[in-house]
Amino acid sequence: MEKNVGILAIDIYFPPACVQQEALETHDGASKGKYTIGLGQDCMSFCTEVEDVISMSLTVVTSLLEKYGIDPKQIGRLEVGSETVIDKSKSIKTFLMQIFEKYGNTDIEGVDSTNACYGGTAALFNCVNWVESNSWDGRYGLVVCTDSAVYAEGPARPTGGAAAIAMLIGPDAPISFESKLRGSHMSHVYDFYKPNLASEYPVVDGKLSQTCYLMAVDSCYKNFCHKFQKFQGKQFSLFDAEYFVFHSPYNKLVQKSFARLFFNDFLMNSSSADEVAKEKLGPFATLSGDESYQSRDLEKASQLLAKPLYDQKVQPTTLIPKQVGNMYTASLYAAFASLIHNKHSTLVNVLTTIYDQASSQQCFVLSNEYLHFSIFRQVRG
Amino acid sequence: MEKNVGILAIDIYFPPACVQQEALETHDGASKGKYTIGLGQDCMSFCTEVEDVISMSLTVVTSLLEKYGIDPKQIGRLEVGSETVIDKSKSIKTFLMQIFEKYGNTDIEGVDSTNACYGGTAALFNCVNWVESNSWDGRYGLVVCTDSAVYAEGPARPTGGAAAIAMLIGPDAPISFESKLRGSHMSHVYDFYKPNLASEYPVVDGKLSQTCYLMAVDSCYKNFCHKFQKFQGKQFSLFDAEYFVFHSPYNKLVQKSFARLFFNDFLMNSSSADEVAKEKLGPFATLSGDESYQSRDLEKASQLLAKPLYDQKVQPTTLIPKQVGNMYTASLYAAFASLIHNKHSTLVNVLTTIYDQASSQQCFVLSNEYLHFSIFRQVRG
Repeated sequence: MEKNVGILAIDIYFPPACVQQEALETHDGASKGKYTIGLGQDCMSFCTEVEDVISMSLTVVTSLLEKYGIDPKQIGRLEVGSETVIDKSKSIKTFLMQIFEKYGNTDIEGVDSTNACYGGTAALFNCVNWVESNSWDGRYGLVVCTDSAVYAEGPARPTGGAAAIAMLIGPDAPISFESKLRGSHMSHVYDFYKPNLASEYPVVDGKLSQTCYLMAVDSCYKNFCHKFQKFQGKQFSLFDAEYFVFHSPYNKLVQKSFARLFFNDFLMNSSSADEVAKEKLGPFATLSGDESYQSRDLEKASQLLAKPLYDQKVQPTTLIPKQVGNMYTASLYAAFASLIHNKHSTLVNVLTTIYDQASSQQCFVLSNEYLHFSIFRQVRG
Repeated sequence: MEKNVGILAIDIYFPPACVQQEALETHDGASKGKYTIGLGQDCMSFCTEVEDVISMSLTVVTSLLEKYGIDPKQIGRLEVGSETVIDKSKSIKTFLMQIFEKYGNTDIEGVDSTNACYGGTAALFNCVNWVESNSWDGRYGLVVCTDSAVYAEGPARPTGGAAAIAMLIGPDAPISFESKLRGSHMSHVYDFYKPNLASEYPVVDGKLSQTCYLMAVDSCYKNFCHKFQKFQGKQFSLFDAEYFVFHSPYNKLVQKSFARLFFNDFLMNSSSADEVAKEKLGPFATLSGDESYQSRDLEKASQLLAKPLYDQKVQPTTLIPKQVGNMYTASLYAAFASLIHNKHSTLVNVLTTIYDQASSQQCFVLSNEYLHFSIFRQVRG
């Protein structure tokens, strides 16, 4: 079986148009800092009337192939993750076939994967599995995540955004996956969905959705730690990974999620926690799950304690998500691209865990990845 | 890597309500035989107001797990193929999670695959690749194809139908795939799509769609034959497979498709054709691709010549599709289930090629499969 299958190259496209969250606060008559500090966001990109998820995906695929000198005939699988459904039957992937047909390549497997924001990660895993399977024919896989997040007027509107990401997949990749160390959590919840097919807006229960996110963080992390223990023979803690990359509906939720992992670590191994942690988090150790999701005091205490680790292990991943906004399927990989951008010179044999989320409710502590900055050089020329 | 990964068990559900095509002819004021002989269909199942693609998929998954005594905790991946999109964000897969959550199993990968009728085959390949990949954790994969095909009043309406299929995936399967022998064809065409999101009806250009189907049959077959030659070292012809299983929008198109393969064989190896074939098909050998798709004379001649082979190699696969109608993603596997039903006692080490299609335009000569009737016994108990 092929070894070190993973990401050979990444490219990102986001629309040139954006609105400053500070200006949006003023426009919406919201209190100053509600979007910038409250949500932790700086800007929000959006598609004007001349672009959409299809044009963004065409742009990013063309750009990746050109930048890295990839012959379109060398693509054997193309997977699209998106929840911006613009046709209920024809896939976005078929639009992208225009790029390959003119080179005579119509023998390309793969379709669109739909499951809220998690569709992109599903598409990525499909590509990786393909390269590791008997069906692999030696060509590259290509994953495209493309979404335009638009909300009805109201509190959710500042959590929009738009972008497309393309990733080239193959063996001997600088970014590869520890496939056995994946924890998933999927359940049937109505926190975020798009049942009004004629509308581009989702139906969203913000409070429930946030709780679902945190519950799934817990569940995936426990799952992941269990597998880490099983395969590596030792307990996992936040100190075992250099970086944590999160799906980012808005930055504040990423902060809360990392704090939640910190609290999980405390619960799993409270005896070895330092005295400050024992004092600050001890009182919350007996809360039920539900109580703990509702406790503002716990949230504050764990965020404060986790802050130094957050600045070191998460903050470098937040650049693009804070500037572009929520990108749904592309969000996690935009955070990942931010990490590569910020830390490229030091990213050699670094262990990273990444976490994706989909409302209604699938989540992921994806795995560990070994990063080498040779990522881009390896596929050039 | 795991060997002989494929289908361990199949279950099918279709709605109890159906209309006889003969009665529909009368109701529509169509000429007698237009739907029964012209389309080759007997009945058409449909969902009444108490069921839909979700309820059908819940039924078929529950049924398969019960029939074959599969513990819901033993499912590690669940993939759904459908083009009956009822939510643009929340996947059908999350609804199915209800079955597994109550057994404490929320660690299940997989999402919905969307690409017209081909989504089911894409979901199947994803599951097979997963079992062959590093990510496989030893549990079963489960593929669900579920669709309700409904058309606006007019000529396409009698080509509707509804069903759900579930397939259990794992190693050492009685039905396994020759993964290297797959030919795909995907291109960007507007023959069948669902851009009116608020409507359950597709936009369909029937004539173009039929031509697309036949063009894709040609392209996939050439692709498949090329790979067969490469890996098996000999030319493929219709005599090399016991059965041919087709995606069936309506039976007449299956007849035409098989005749098209017959014509392909003639073109690839006309010197060894018998005298009758030379006389009847020779005059069409110089037609351009476009001309050949339009030629009614070619269609008639090749159907007549292919008829004895059709009766032997295709007819046993048409039982359910003729009785239930078009099932979109489930269509191909309903045809396959028909073959198992009709020929079970003789299906030992039999080579079968199967062909799936998606409008707008992905197609497939899937592969060869080795069938053993032990399929059901192997997973019982």
